Amino acid sequence: MINFLNNSSETPYVIFKNKYDEALDANQSSIEAISISSFSHELNEVDSRFVNLKFVDKKDFIFFSNYESQKALQFKSHDQISCLIFWNKINSQIRMKAKIKKTSTDFNKKYFSNRDRKKNALAISSNQSKEIKSYGEVKTNFENVLEDKDLYKCPPYWGGYKFEPHYFEFWDGHPSRINKREIFNLVDGEWISKILQP
Amino acid sequence: MINFLNNSSETPYVIFKNKYDEALDANQSSIEAISISSFSHELNEVDSRFVNLKFVDKKDFIFFSNYESQKALQFKSHDQISCLIFWNKINSQIRMKAKIKKTSTDFNKKYFSNRDRKKNALAISSNQSKEIKSYGEVKTNFENVLEDKDLYKCPPYWGGYKFEPHYFEFWDGHPSRINKREIFNLVDGEWISKILQP
Repeated sequence: MINFLNNSSETPYVIFKNKYDEALDANQSSIEAISISSFSHELNEVDSRFVNLKFVDKKDFIFFSNYESQKALQFKSHDQISCLIFWNKINSQIRMKAKIKKTSTDFNKKYFSNRDRKKNALAISSNQSKEIKSYGEVKTNFENVLEDKDLYKCPPYWGGYKFEPHYFEFWDGHPSRINKREIFNLVDGEWISKILQP
Repeated sequence: MINFLNNSSETPYVIFKNKYDEALDANQSSIEAISISSFSHELNEVDSRFVNLKFVDKKDFIFFSNYESQKALQFKSHDQISCLIFWNKINSQIRMKAKIKKTSTDFNKKYFSNRDRKKNALAISSNQSKEIKSYGEVKTNFENVLEDKDLYKCPPYWGGYKFEPHYFEFWDGHPSRINKREIFNLVDGEWISKILQP
């Protein structure tokens, strides 16, 4: 589930929310899964992964991460990302482009203090994307943190990322393959929409 | 569906095929959907979209596209891509990195000559990702091509892309969130595997 804190009345946001509601009604599983693609100028390399989109707050899309992970390094190297959602139950793909920023420490602390303690134990115990000897060791680290640590204190290496898209594409698949593609481009504060060929 | 033409016996390919078979048994919908992320040095911008993965032929993953589309321009600008599959029915994510190349003209012609004529009419009629006045005009162009053209002759602006990953990550989600991550990195022709922290 994505938590909509406040709704923007700008057209692409309204479409996004309507499609979300449709997908939810259609029992879309993993509805919060969003692919985030990033670039490292140092490695000259594109990278991608799915994350869970947690909030949409007005025009900000928000997810959480370890701030020392590979993706965090990539966001530091290149602060522009592309995002991708595919809700197969309604055959809709949503593409977005945006600049990415960290959420505030206050926001992170507040969110962390209200999360499930097991999720927090994992966030505290995991040195995200770093090598480890075995999957067993991941579990041991988790169990140790679960017993010993203050599980509501947000570690400095954990928090949110937010992005406000300047580009949306709504792609609606059609059985005939004559798919519908509508884009919205933010130009000088105005959303310019176009139809693209499939 | 993905069509496995020939199977590689290298470990990450064997794992890939096993996971595919598991997802297929679990009735995974859109099982062929794969996100392809690319970079444009000219625009200094990452971009992503889902495509249909059509073939795995030994170590080559193959999909088809218009060769004048945005993604084609991006592949020309930067020939490295990242790829992402999420099979929610088995809670598995597969991440890959690779260099991308065009398939041969012969391969494209042969494949095109055996495809469904309506799919071909769409490939011929659509100036992919270019603006058009309306969705109605997309349909009119399609109908015109369907009536008038040789639908089995592959146009020069359409064909396949293939990539042979040098990096795989198999991410298996776990209800506890203690997800399992195993990577395979091709170093001097050898696959080096590691476990990553979740």
